[in-house]
Amino acid sequence: MKIWCNGDFGEEGMALLREGTRAHTLVISGSSNSSVLAGPQRDPSIAGASVAFGQPDPEDCLANPGLRWIEVSSAGYTRYDTVAFREGLRARGSVFTNASQVYADACAEHVLAMILALGRQLLPSFQTQRTDRVWPYQERRDASRLLKGQTVVLLGFGAIGLRLAELLAPFRVKIYAVRRRIRSEPGVHVVSEESLTRVLAEADHVVNVLPENDETRNYVNARRIACFKVGARFYNVGRGPTVDQEALIQGLNSGRIGAAYLDVMVPEPLPPESPLWSTPRCFITPHTAGGRDNVNPELVRHFLANLAAFEAGAPMTDRVL
Amino acid sequence: MKIWCNGDFGEEGMALLREGTRAHTLVISGSSNSSVLAGPQRDPSIAGASVAFGQPDPEDCLANPGLRWIEVSSAGYTRYDTVAFREGLRARGSVFTNASQVYADACAEHVLAMILALGRQLLPSFQTQRTDRVWPYQERRDASRLLKGQTVVLLGFGAIGLRLAELLAPFRVKIYAVRRRIRSEPGVHVVSEESLTRVLAEADHVVNVLPENDETRNYVNARRIACFKVGARFYNVGRGPTVDQEALIQGLNSGRIGAAYLDVMVPEPLPPESPLWSTPRCFITPHTAGGRDNVNPELVRHFLANLAAFEAGAPMTDRVL
Repeated sequence: MKIWCNGDFGEEGMALLREGTRAHTLVISGSSNSSVLAGPQRDPSIAGASVAFGQPDPEDCLANPGLRWIEVSSAGYTRYDTVAFREGLRARGSVFTNASQVYADACAEHVLAMILALGRQLLPSFQTQRTDRVWPYQERRDASRLLKGQTVVLLGFGAIGLRLAELLAPFRVKIYAVRRRIRSEPGVHVVSEESLTRVLAEADHVVNVLPENDETRNYVNARRIACFKVGARFYNVGRGPTVDQEALIQGLNSGRIGAAYLDVMVPEPLPPESPLWSTPRCFITPHTAGGRDNVNPELVRHFLANLAAFEAGAPMTDRVL
Repeated sequence: MKIWCNGDFGEEGMALLREGTRAHTLVISGSSNSSVLAGPQRDPSIAGASVAFGQPDPEDCLANPGLRWIEVSSAGYTRYDTVAFREGLRARGSVFTNASQVYADACAEHVLAMILALGRQLLPSFQTQRTDRVWPYQERRDASRLLKGQTVVLLGFGAIGLRLAELLAPFRVKIYAVRRRIRSEPGVHVVSEESLTRVLAEADHVVNVLPENDETRNYVNARRIACFKVGARFYNVGRGPTVDQEALIQGLNSGRIGAAYLDVMVPEPLPPESPLWSTPRCFITPHTAGGRDNVNPELVRHFLANLAAFEAGAPMTDRVL
């Protein structure tokens, strides 16, 4: 098989990839394009490939009917999530996988880090250290909250949500997950859109892990924010366009939202003049939730495990189509 | 029974206390002394009491042989932890309890919050937001670490350590706990002092939850820090005097210690001129690890549950003597 790859997975990752694909013909594209957020970048070297790994141009995928499996090295796959792409791949029975599992651990740890950091007043204490070095002992203690026993609503429930629910289990929180497909999970109340108003009113923490598509754009809007319990904390580690940022700023200014944490937003990078940077109780990180120091070898291992499954006709991890 | 109390547990807490002690004579001391770190404050109103709740003066406890049970409203009890106090109480068969359980949840969540916040680079990102609003996407992602699969050493293993081990379970970390009494716990390798050098060399995170007493003062010293794995992160939520702060600063400056987080130190409040505030990768919070917004009613509930057990001759929570 010809396996085409346009990711750059570093020295260790590329060595693993070469070793793991020795039984095949590996073609490394000269035009490496490692971001799922990049624009089109067609590459004729994909011609004749059976497998594509990295961030192949969606048009290239459709124009090469011999491609039987595509694995993208990201969790998000917005530019592939179109009717034309889905139907094109389905018509020829091709498989599409992403790398959600590689990022799910990091994203889930990241969200929990911010839930706890806000609960424990770590950011104002860090600010105190960096500025006046006072000792607001009683004020900070009184403002601290236990996560134990609180209520968390997950908007979207895939690999990240599942892992977050695992991490939250010992805190004995009540977890609701809102998604289309109602399927119960241990320790998680999976509810449909119809129950959204009710569960938002109950939540201490609303965690948005929605992917971006036509149905999720501006999902967190003024109408839904108005359903939040006063003082609820909101977190977005999904995709920026799923949040109406104007409505979010209004929710923070009115006090309805107790704090907002955004790892993703529109646009990225967020320009210094954006009002999000300075809105009270709005916390920004530069799209780092999925980051981990050894991500490249992990992405290659994920691909190679799926390659073995693909060849054996076995179930593949993170299959989207 | 006469129950003497010198804590001020707020409106809700005092109402609970009055209600829960109606069958007895409750005497509220005029000289409320709610800090375990306070100096001596003897109070004649304790005379004739069978039970003392709050922060009674240790001399008063010894001078009143009718006192059959003392509950302190703190987790620490250094000023009671003397040979004279222990032997005085033992000689007359009196019981001494603290309020560890009330603080254990908060402390364990607090330590995990900082472990994760450091792992996820939340503090430098907050600093970026407060200053130049740049977008160090790749740098922060590469510096991020998964807690999953790492190794944690707990110095001391009481109520906080037990709860922390519960919270860490889904991260599948390897946990060592160093304490005198070797007793296995699920998911925790309890080891003795003899194994300390070996486990310190393995640890990504060293969490100090030691109480303060003659054996623990300056426990974390230059000799033990030299056993740390290079880059290990150190956390202290026990008591300040268990750490040799000069040695800690040297460990940070040499790079042996990757980061240090201190919620307790010497002295408290830490004066603005202390070098700890500005030592690289040293993070300070103002003794807030045990803080929680509803602590006063919880302390009273803890006492009342123990009062019921005391009257019934049943096992009491957080019994020290």
